[in-house]
Amino acid sequence: RRTGDPEVVFGQGKTPEQIVGALTTLHASHPERAILATRLDGEARDAIRLALPDADVDDVSRTAVLGPLPTPSGRVLVVAAGTSDAPVAAEAMITARVHGTSAERVDDVGVAGLHRLLAVRDRLDDADALIVVAGMEGALPSVVGGLTGVPLVAVPTSIGYGTGAGGLAALLAMLNSCAPGIAVVNVDNGYGAGVHAARIARRARPRDAV
Amino acid sequence: RRTGDPEVVFGQGKTPEQIVGALTTLHASHPERAILATRLDGEARDAIRLALPDADVDDVSRTAVLGPLPTPSGRVLVVAAGTSDAPVAAEAMITARVHGTSAERVDDVGVAGLHRLLAVRDRLDDADALIVVAGMEGALPSVVGGLTGVPLVAVPTSIGYGTGAGGLAALLAMLNSCAPGIAVVNVDNGYGAGVHAARIARRARPRDAV
Amino acid sequence: RRTGDPEVVFGQGKTPEQIVGALTTLHASHPERAILATRLDGEARDAIRLALPDADVDDVSRTAVLGPLPTPSGRVLVVAAGTSDAPVAAEAMITARVHGTSAERVDDVGVAGLHRLLAVRDRLDDADALIVVAGMEGALPSVVGGLTGVPLVAVPTSIGYGTGAGGLAALLAMLNSCAPGIAVVNVDNGYGAGVHAARIARRARPRDAV
Amino acid sequence: RRTGDPEVVFGQGKTPEQIVGALTTLHASHPERAILATRLDGEARDAIRLALPDADVDDVSRTAVLGPLPTPSGRVLVVAAGTSDAPVAAEAMITARVHGTSAERVDDVGVAGLHRLLAVRDRLDDADALIVVAGMEGALPSVVGGLTGVPLVAVPTSIGYGTGAGGLAALLAMLNSCAPGIAVVNVDNGYGAGVHAARIARRARPRDAV
Amino acid sequence: RRTGDPEVVFGQGKTPEQIVGALTTLHASHPERAILATRLDGEARDAIRLALPDADVDDVSRTAVLGPLPTPSGRVLVVAAGTSDAPVAAEAMITARVHGTSAERVDDVGVAGLHRLLAVRDRLDDADALIVVAGMEGALPSVVGGLTGVPLVAVPTSIGYGTGAGGLAALLAMLNSCAPGIAVVNVDNGYGAGVHAARIARRARPRDAV
Amino acid sequence: RRTGDPEVVFGQGKTPEQIVGALTTLHASHPERAILATRLDGEARDAIRLALPDADVDDVSRTAVLGPLPTPSGRVLVVAAGTSDAPVAAEAMITARVHGTSAERVDDVGVAGLHRLLAVRDRLDDADALIVVAGMEGALPSVVGGLTGVPLVAVPTSIGYGTGAGGLAALLAMLNSCAPGIAVVNVDNGYGAGVHAARIARRARPRDAV
Amino acid sequence: RRTGDPEVVFGQGKTPEQIVGALTTLHASHPERAILATRLDGEARDAIRLALPDADVDDVSRTAVLGPLPTPSGRVLVVAAGTSDAPVAAEAMITARVHGTSAERVDDVGVAGLHRLLAVRDRLDDADALIVVAGMEGALPSVVGGLTGVPLVAVPTSIGYGTGAGGLAALLAMLNSCAPGIAVVNVDNGYGAGVHAARIARRARPRDAV
Amino acid sequence: RRTGDPEVVFGQGKTPEQIVGALTTLHASHPERAILATRLDGEARDAIRLALPDADVDDVSRTAVLGPLPTPSGRVLVVAAGTSDAPVAAEAMITARVHGTSAERVDDVGVAGLHRLLAVRDRLDDADALIVVAGMEGALPSVVGGLTGVPLVAVPTSIGYGTGAGGLAALLAMLNSCAPGIAVVNVDNGYGAGVHAARIARRARPRDAV
Ligand SMILES: Nc1ncnc2c1ncn2[C@@H]1O[C@H](COP(=O)(O)O)[C@@H](O)[C@H]1O
Ligand SMILES: Nc1ncnc2c1ncn2[C@@H]1O[C@H](COP(=O)(O)O)[C@@H](O)[C@H]1O
Ligand SMILES: Nc1ncnc2c1ncn2[C@@H]1O[C@H](COP(=O)(O)O)[C@@H](O)[C@H]1O
Ligand SMILES: Nc1ncnc2c1ncn2[C@@H]1O[C@H](COP(=O)(O)O)[C@@H](O)[C@H]1O
Ligand SMILES: [Mg+2]
Ligand SMILES: [Mg+2]
Ligand SMILES: [Mg+2]
Ligand SMILES: [Mg+2]
Ligand SMILES: [Mg+2]
Ligand SMILES: [Mg+2]
Ligand SMILES: [Mg+2]
Ligand SMILES: [Mg+2]
Repeated sequence: RRTGDPEVVFGQGKTPEQIVGALTTLHASHPERAILATRLDGEARDAIRLALPDADVDDVSRTAVLGPLPTPSGRVLVVAAGTSDAPVAAEAMITARVHGTSAERVDDVGVAGLHRLLAVRDRLDDADALIVVAGMEGALPSVVGGLTGVPLVAVPTSIGYGTGAGGLAALLAMLNSCAPGIAVVNVDNGYGAGVHAARIARRARPRDAV
Repeated sequence: RRTGDPEVVFGQGKTPEQIVGALTTLHASHPERAILATRLDGEARDAIRLALPDADVDDVSRTAVLGPLPTPSGRVLVVAAGTSDAPVAAEAMITARVHGTSAERVDDVGVAGLHRLLAVRDRLDDADALIVVAGMEGALPSVVGGLTGVPLVAVPTSIGYGTGAGGLAALLAMLNSCAPGIAVVNVDNGYGAGVHAARIARRARPRDAV
Repeated sequence: RRTGDPEVVFGQGKTPEQIVGALTTLHASHPERAILATRLDGEARDAIRLALPDADVDDVSRTAVLGPLPTPSGRVLVVAAGTSDAPVAAEAMITARVHGTSAERVDDVGVAGLHRLLAVRDRLDDADALIVVAGMEGALPSVVGGLTGVPLVAVPTSIGYGTGAGGLAALLAMLNSCAPGIAVVNVDNGYGAGVHAARIARRARPRDAV
Repeated sequence: RRTGDPEVVFGQGKTPEQIVGALTTLHASHPERAILATRLDGEARDAIRLALPDADVDDVSRTAVLGPLPTPSGRVLVVAAGTSDAPVAAEAMITARVHGTSAERVDDVGVAGLHRLLAVRDRLDDADALIVVAGMEGALPSVVGGLTGVPLVAVPTSIGYGTGAGGLAALLAMLNSCAPGIAVVNVDNGYGAGVHAARIARRARPRDAV
Repeated sequence: RRTGDPEVVFGQGKTPEQIVGALTTLHASHPERAILATRLDGEARDAIRLALPDADVDDVSRTAVLGPLPTPSGRVLVVAAGTSDAPVAAEAMITARVHGTSAERVDDVGVAGLHRLLAVRDRLDDADALIVVAGMEGALPSVVGGLTGVPLVAVPTSIGYGTGAGGLAALLAMLNSCAPGIAVVNVDNGYGAGVHAARIARRARPRDAV
Repeated sequence: RRTGDPEVVFGQGKTPEQIVGALTTLHASHPERAILATRLDGEARDAIRLALPDADVDDVSRTAVLGPLPTPSGRVLVVAAGTSDAPVAAEAMITARVHGTSAERVDDVGVAGLHRLLAVRDRLDDADALIVVAGMEGALPSVVGGLTGVPLVAVPTSIGYGTGAGGLAALLAMLNSCAPGIAVVNVDNGYGAGVHAARIARRARPRDAV
Repeated sequence: RRTGDPEVVFGQGKTPEQIVGALTTLHASHPERAILATRLDGEARDAIRLALPDADVDDVSRTAVLGPLPTPSGRVLVVAAGTSDAPVAAEAMITARVHGTSAERVDDVGVAGLHRLLAVRDRLDDADALIVVAGMEGALPSVVGGLTGVPLVAVPTSIGYGTGAGGLAALLAMLNSCAPGIAVVNVDNGYGAGVHAARIARRARPRDAV
Repeated sequence: RRTGDPEVVFGQGKTPEQIVGALTTLHASHPERAILATRLDGEARDAIRLALPDADVDDVSRTAVLGPLPTPSGRVLVVAAGTSDAPVAAEAMITARVHGTSAERVDDVGVAGLHRLLAVRDRLDDADALIVVAGMEGALPSVVGGLTGVPLVAVPTSIGYGTGAGGLAALLAMLNSCAPGIAVVNVDNGYGAGVHAARIARRARPRDAV
């Protein structure tokens, strides 16, 4: 692929058979690469586990990976506000790894309790790219973005209720953040944030060289 | 008035003559009380200055006060994010004073530079009620609300552009704040926040008694 | 906690195991305090009843309380428009009690039948803080706010259909209320209103002293 | 005209010449009837005053009437919340008169001060149709509708700011009113309300006959 | 009741027991009047049939009537666009009858086939009030309103898909109708339209007297 | 151009100099073709009249045409609801001509007065493509579409006020039309409708051959 | 039918019995024509298969056709972006055939992989009308519209998530396309696009004659 | 500054005096660094030219730079769709330079004319970060993102009319792009895109080393 990215199967709106079929075909033509499938419901995950026992199926991120991960280059850190943002954060982390970078997570870092966030300040600075995932804490990217100059992509999640339902409040908060340089992806799009961050991190100069 | 509040003239959509007339009549019947006029455009402010030289006309908050302020009881603190939020913050402060409490302002306290906010932490705790005014920094009430348990009312402002224009992004951020107990008033409604905070502060137990 | 508030577990989006676990841990470290859990579905409430027989589980408000309530200081009154607003009103009342104040409810007080509202006028004036809960009767806070000067926080509910579905109509009516000083929380956010009102009431001067 | 209504010229988006031309032509063919022109800006009103000195041009409602009013049958009462709602209320009243009914106004009747409204209760009951005009007091039709069984049409106005700007908050409040039987017209559409109410009133049984 | 209207139980969000209870109590105090219950789901209708065999339960309109209908005065005609608008049209018709007027329906009258509508033109003129119900045919009230001068209230329905889902397209079409004098109620609010039309019709002068 | 369409200059957001420059250059390279410029404000039209006296500048449609019109093939009919929709209708008509078809207009054809529309029924059937332009009469395409099977493209206009302001009501009415086969372009996009209709008409079989 | 179109039964919101009944009646009166039923859920399709074994029932497009297809005239090409847009594309194709034209599909043609699209360029030019169906690839009509001058109607689909859910993002992208002459139908309205395209294609001059 | 970014003055909503004052003070404390001012209206630019003749004031991007640009590291390429998107593209380019990277522009690259875009394909691949600016061509980032794997940030602009006015259509198109890894900033936020891209580019490994 000209873009240098792996093949990805978008599972939503596909039958388990269509998904297993796509993974099988793509894997056959390039067994040396990782293939990612996202947005897999329970039925699709079961079908993959049965038909492709070598696949790495994950229930939290609702993803499957088939084939060996690439050798990682660069570091992505995924910062998530709350427990309920975990599925999106997990999708972002796995996507980043499949796209050629190392990726880790820091969870349950809230704006209303700043101390937990201040405690991980050094890990923020050590990353080549940051992904900040938040639903009800739409303010989190602003605060993180004020603490570090590392490229940051924010992911609003559809957690919440009332006017926050569906992620619109978090999306708008992130687009209008007063901290400079924050870029945003669609609500719940951990996949897109993972690709964006991986592309940054895998081209980044090694940190001792900065 | 049964509610114990002063008379207020809402200047928007009224002619200078109508406003001067209302102030004159209300003042005549209760010269011992303060009367507040809000949302006064330049023309209305000029007309008041000319016709009612005793009135206290303020260009930033676009208000006028006629008659003596009541003896203050309790303390309101108005925290504003940026220079452009000043008119709304000023309207809130003056309204609080006219409604029987003392009121002060802390300006230019941003989320992207947490140190300035952390520096005023004690002043937050010392207030009986907090008003937090912010447009592009819709995250500010969340962060302030995580630092103190003082009753807090947030005012979104219509500062901003793109999806933030008109104050919707700030309003939604405040309604969905992860910090508990934050109440919100309409976009640019410094007046409403001032009334709410004054009612809290003037009934609050003296702080040494808490 | 610096804010002086109890620990609260937000049940939505958590498994029954996660919720029971959180309650157990928090209770163990502070058995002398009340812990509140909100937005509990039927399954979560069953799990709590089984695992924590001492917890006070309520099906209407969908909450659980573990540990002794604090000694109340001050009075909150929750005014609800209709039968269907009861769950949100109940959540607000229990939250206020857990946050250190006494709280009572007046139900089925409608704008279209003013006599019921006028009949409780004295109870409105006797409160230290008012919570007004309404979905289809978005006008209720305006009318209550015209009858008393007690600090008032309004909660829109998602009751209704057509253009009222989801609570937007009630939210906008409350934000634009012509009665001064009304502050608003998110749709269905009885919890947030309870915290705000409790903070006001527990700091209020005893009423004979006002 | 099959509908029995007079001719009306909608002035918005037309040149003064087009408007004067339309009035002149229509008047020539039916000099015995009243013709109404609405939404006239200052320039159009000046042009009409100059070219058609017999026309009745009104600056508040921004209307002109040419030719004799019909003999009125039935009674319409227009209730307006605030001073700034006056232009829409005036347009509704004049439209009703041109459409064959008598019409009067009660102004400055607010929800936050119920006594003024309760004082005119009998006039509400005496009307054949009610028009309630309100911007910031979107709650007014609900309260009026709870006081009387007379057919009521509500007109939201674009007065207000923040989330109320443009009349959406008032429109939604009226559509979702808890008082039964309230019908609504478009924001600022005093004309439409006037036609609707006049059609009701001029067909109503004389009140002593009810 | 001062408004002269019967008692109505709004079934949505109430348990079958609450609904049966309310009907029983209201009927006991005024057995000579009709009581209406609306928005009844299948379970509620079953419970009423069982507990109150004298009630008139209707599955299309999802209503129940207990007690004798009042002697009708005046005529309401309900015009519906399509088969799927029938439940709302039926609710409007039954509501009008309970509120003291006679009411009939004309169904399946579409804008895309004008002949069916032109065929019922005389019935439109013979009514004292018209109710026009339409979802995908939001244009219908405009066309009907151009054919007759009878007072007309329009009801948008939530039939439709894509941008029409939820009734917003129909609501806006009706609010902006070019035919004068059309008033509108909330999406799917057949009840409100029925009350409004009945109040008009039962006060209308007998048609030979017009 | 592969698409077979002429060059078009979009005037909005360009300086008069930029527009005159673009027209001059394009005309120089293809003097035998017509070039169209749209969305020209008064200043731009003056500059074109001065610099390019051969250009055909039109104040109503705010367009200019330079170079000879192509020989027309096929017939487009533009149907407009009201006087205020004229600029958009004129832009559509001129665009269609520049794109190689003949085009005529029928104006002031309203839904509330069906007779005018029924009177032009034959002209509707004789066209190869119809463009229906309407703002406040968003119902017009539905009614026209029920009268004929000719391909029809609808253009909502931003005429109107209240909820109709900006053309959203007309756009939604057209997208949800009950008459089958109606396609829609953006609000005020007479240009786009003209291109679509011209492409249909210039490929249409001659009518005697149908 | 004056419009020359076949009868169509809109299945959504109708019972299986109503649908089978409508098909039976319409077929009986015109056995020589095709009748189309759309938006059929599984239950309706089963009922048709049982009661009308001659009907052609299709599970992907959720349609049924009863009676012989008309002899086709002209060519429609349906271009679909992704696998999940297939149901809407299939409904468009079948509708076009029932409305008297031949119709074929090209699937899985994405903007992010331009080569597949460029490969079918000649087929685009050979059609008399194009239908472009896309949800997450709202950009597709713009790119196709830049490659050919054939009349093009775009159908947004409700595939997608986050801000794309419900098809609004695709609809807006299509309405604002920079490629000229693109007309749009409602979200998921394959039926409407099929009618529009068929009307164009069946009147088109045979291609060798162009 | 911990983030490593220069000081920036946001000019919107500030007086010329406030802006000149801020630039003067910041420059005095760090004369060796560049300071950027954005969103300067004509009056502010005039005041800066007069008071700070050394400042580099630009009328297209509405920015001013005071002090020497940093030595650039890495390459940003700004791709703009149309002439009217130029101000936002220019703001992005200047911001990137002030933030320590080299930056160039490619203008007038449209989706409807793919050849111009395909012609610059190599320049896309040579960049360390891409900024794609588009209003009416919201599809552009999708197409660019399909051609290259370079990290890409998209900026919607408020160019356009009808439903595209204000940039919402472009924003949604970009958030829902089918090309993976595209991140988005607020409407018209060239500044934010410049900061994001510069942070990526200045940390990127030299290209020969990739
Ligand atoms: N979770 C996701 N969200 C958005 N796009 C995705 C996601 N997963 C995969 N995609 C995109 O969908 C494409 C595959 O779509 P498909 O061919 O329908 O399986 C991939 O190349 C990705 O660009
Ligand atoms: N800035 C403001 N925003 C909202 N409401 C206001 C404001 N200023 C005054 N009001 C309200 O408007 C009422 C007076 O309105 P009026 O009688 O029209 O002058 C006061 O009693 C206040 O409740
Ligand atoms: N009124 C209009 N509305 C929308 N697009 C237009 C209009 N007029 C011209 N265009 C498009 O704008 C293109 C020219 O844009 P430009 O190169 O900026 O002048 C033309 O090829 C048309 O596709
Ligand atoms: N999928 C569809 N989407 C929109 N309108 C449709 C669809 N299928 C049929 N129709 C319209 O619905 C009419 C039939 O409606 P009905 O009489 O309710 O069955 C047809 O004449 C078409 O105009
Ligand atoms: Mg947390
Ligand atoms: Mg600041
Ligand atoms: Mg009630
Ligand atoms: Mg008033
Ligand atoms: Mg039908
Ligand atoms: Mg007209
Ligand atoms: Mg695909
Ligand atoms: Mg261009």
